[in-house]
Amino acid sequence: MTILDIIEKKRDKQELSKEEIEYFIKGYTEGTIADYQAAALVMAIFINGMTKEETTNLTLSMANSGEILDVFGDGAKKHQKIIVDKHSTGGVGDKVSLILLPLVASCGVPVAKMSGRGLGFTGGTVDKLEAIPGYKTGIDINSFIQNVENIGISMISQTLNLAPADKKIYALRDSISCVESIPLIASSIMSKKIASGANKIVLDVTVGSGAFMKDIEQASQLAKAMIEIGELANRETVCVLTNMEEPLGYAVGNTLEIKEAVEALKGNIPEDVKQVVLELGAYMIKLANVVNTIEEAKELLIEKLQSGEAFNKFIELVQNQGGDISYITDLEKFEKAKYIEPVYSQKSGYIQKINAETIGKLACSLGAGRIRKEDKIDMAVGIILNKKVGNYVEEGDCLGYIHTNNENTLQEAKSKMIETIKIDKQEKEPIKTILKIIS
Amino acid sequence: MTILDIIEKKRDKQELSKEEIEYFIKGYTEGTIADYQAAALVMAIFINGMTKEETTNLTLSMANSGEILDVFGDGAKKHQKIIVDKHSTGGVGDKVSLILLPLVASCGVPVAKMSGRGLGFTGGTVDKLEAIPGYKTGIDINSFIQNVENIGISMISQTLNLAPADKKIYALRDSISCVESIPLIASSIMSKKIASGANKIVLDVTVGSGAFMKDIEQASQLAKAMIEIGELANRETVCVLTNMEEPLGYAVGNTLEIKEAVEALKGNIPEDVKQVVLELGAYMIKLANVVNTIEEAKELLIEKLQSGEAFNKFIELVQNQGGDISYITDLEKFEKAKYIEPVYSQKSGYIQKINAETIGKLACSLGAGRIRKEDKIDMAVGIILNKKVGNYVEEGDCLGYIHTNNENTLQEAKSKMIETIKIDKQEKEPIKTILKIIS
Repeated sequence: MTILDIIEKKRDKQELSKEEIEYFIKGYTEGTIADYQAAALVMAIFINGMTKEETTNLTLSMANSGEILDVFGDGAKKHQKIIVDKHSTGGVGDKVSLILLPLVASCGVPVAKMSGRGLGFTGGTVDKLEAIPGYKTGIDINSFIQNVENIGISMISQTLNLAPADKKIYALRDSISCVESIPLIASSIMSKKIASGANKIVLDVTVGSGAFMKDIEQASQLAKAMIEIGELANRETVCVLTNMEEPLGYAVGNTLEIKEAVEALKGNIPEDVKQVVLELGAYMIKLANVVNTIEEAKELLIEKLQSGEAFNKFIELVQNQGGDISYITDLEKFEKAKYIEPVYSQKSGYIQKINAETIGKLACSLGAGRIRKEDKIDMAVGIILNKKVGNYVEEGDCLGYIHTNNENTLQEAKSKMIETIKIDKQEKEPIKTILKIIS
Repeated sequence: MTILDIIEKKRDKQELSKEEIEYFIKGYTEGTIADYQAAALVMAIFINGMTKEETTNLTLSMANSGEILDVFGDGAKKHQKIIVDKHSTGGVGDKVSLILLPLVASCGVPVAKMSGRGLGFTGGTVDKLEAIPGYKTGIDINSFIQNVENIGISMISQTLNLAPADKKIYALRDSISCVESIPLIASSIMSKKIASGANKIVLDVTVGSGAFMKDIEQASQLAKAMIEIGELANRETVCVLTNMEEPLGYAVGNTLEIKEAVEALKGNIPEDVKQVVLELGAYMIKLANVVNTIEEAKELLIEKLQSGEAFNKFIELVQNQGGDISYITDLEKFEKAKYIEPVYSQKSGYIQKINAETIGKLACSLGAGRIRKEDKIDMAVGIILNKKVGNYVEEGDCLGYIHTNNENTLQEAKSKMIETIKIDKQEKEPIKTILKIIS
């Protein structure tokens, strides 16, 4: 077997065997297969596609290319412990993990979550957690596991070398215009979930202007591909397609989203955020066999929110990770941006559209996100929206606020925000949050 | 314009503009576009193809990526001088250039020929010329042009940096399983011809086991693609499809082929070699406007062969390049291999097949060719066949000779040769040499 034979096969639209895929992943990870050979193969995969067996073998090979997180060690097998993981394909204002994970942990489902940092216009959960003074996202793996055992939850950054083959291929795809490929996206996501030890997976597949998948058709294809991998790899997987046409909730920015998440855990939860949290949470606790039906699951989740148990779990999590909980109990303590500028509507009517990508990029340009990996984040800045699509506004009503530390960016940010919030006389239905469940 | 946009376009089966192709070739030649990006684009071209306009633009960009040979300087334009070049897609025992070029030069068509070295199982004209003691293939470009002006012919190795982009892409294709692509092969060949200054081109497209194109269908496609490039690039092009099922002529090996070529120039020319030489020669001198019809052209060529003018032109060429012509006038002076071993037929019947690729590889393994670029060639070794497909042989008849300097290789070479010459009771037609003319 040589890499030339493997490239030739995929070039000619033939199916690659498990051994051929493993040979490629091993060789590319170790550097015996060159970038240009991997590039040719990846392009052939992009154009000619992969069967579900190939995609699964690619996923498992990538998952096995580095360390594998084994939260409960051999115990997991002995006690048939179920590890449910959750992943989102990314969005703007997506603070779901911050609310959802303490909530499911409060239902008795262990949460051992490694999250990524934000890049581009979508934020990352790790960055948001770091907005809490003292919160350590970089603790070592033993403390991480200890935390999960002690209080049932730990949320950290990716400290293990999970799926290095995926990292290498992902970077390559980015530099050869091979990002938007269903088998490549599906295997990339699933390889990381499998390497992080999950045996049940709930995926939030976002759809719309602020997401990677621009329409339901595409998103369904991706969801189907990931579920097929889950089936063949023996990891039960459920995909919830959620809308990312407008930002999720009202806050976009690290501290601003932490505050919104804490409010949500205290019961003051925006409707769209609530729907996503309940839907994903219900499938997570059902997969973990805590309940028998989705209806039962949702009832339990609402109960844990209302009783304050979810909020208490979040407090426990923050404390356990070294965070200062006085910020959580008194949100006013968080440092605010120097300039908090209201943005007023210039006409009356119904909000037709709030482009999530534009809002995400705007927050990013204020300093809330990274354009390059090495960029520093300004925790305090971002955007607060006062309205959602479908709301009626009068001319002069406050549409939201720009939070910035740089006076020079204010005027441009304000006009961008006004421009991207489309208002028209015509009535407009609110955006449907949960689009489809695929399992 | 970025390379990412260009890759994406071809990935999505769109047509690339002249500017996009030029951007790629310039960037790749200069090194601002990485190998892996070029690899992705080349794979996309392989799978999704190219229109004739794209192929032509690729050809011209590659031709213009380095030096351009301008034999007659501005004079060429002033006097409408026609430069006819000839190229073969490669074969076994292919000594055609050695006979054809002095022959057309003797008809008054200027020959300024830069040839390549052999790699793999096919030989190279430059290697064969170097079998003549003293013959300098590496003379500088001014002497080369001077020779063409003085005696109407010079044959050297590629001393100019012709089409470096083609060299780089060719090496890349080899390492990413993207060799067998009609637009890529066609543009590679034509870019070198255009860079070497030709405005009329005659191509010998070989077909069969000893050639790159294995069947007439494939070869016709390649020929058509090259003719289309010629049309769009304003270089009139004719393709002669010739058979390469069995080796051309009887000799395979450098000195052995020089001797066969000299004999041919003296009138003792094997029938298949004669057909190829006359067909290619006729189109060359017709394109050069020396004659009006192909029939007229063939008559003139035969006359020049019979009168000894072609042979005299060859003597002039060798002398002018520093070669010792006493070897040409007395072929016995050439150094012979230590072992010249006859190979006898083990059965009676008609020769059905003499696999050209196998014979080529056999000669190569004796030392007549290179497996790697840096390998040294043994000029004296090779194979002489006594028979052609269709000939009748008795058991015990001599099928040919192995010429080698290594006694150890003898037995294996003999059995390989016996094995590859297929003999059967059934009568067999000789192989048709000229398969098709495409213009």
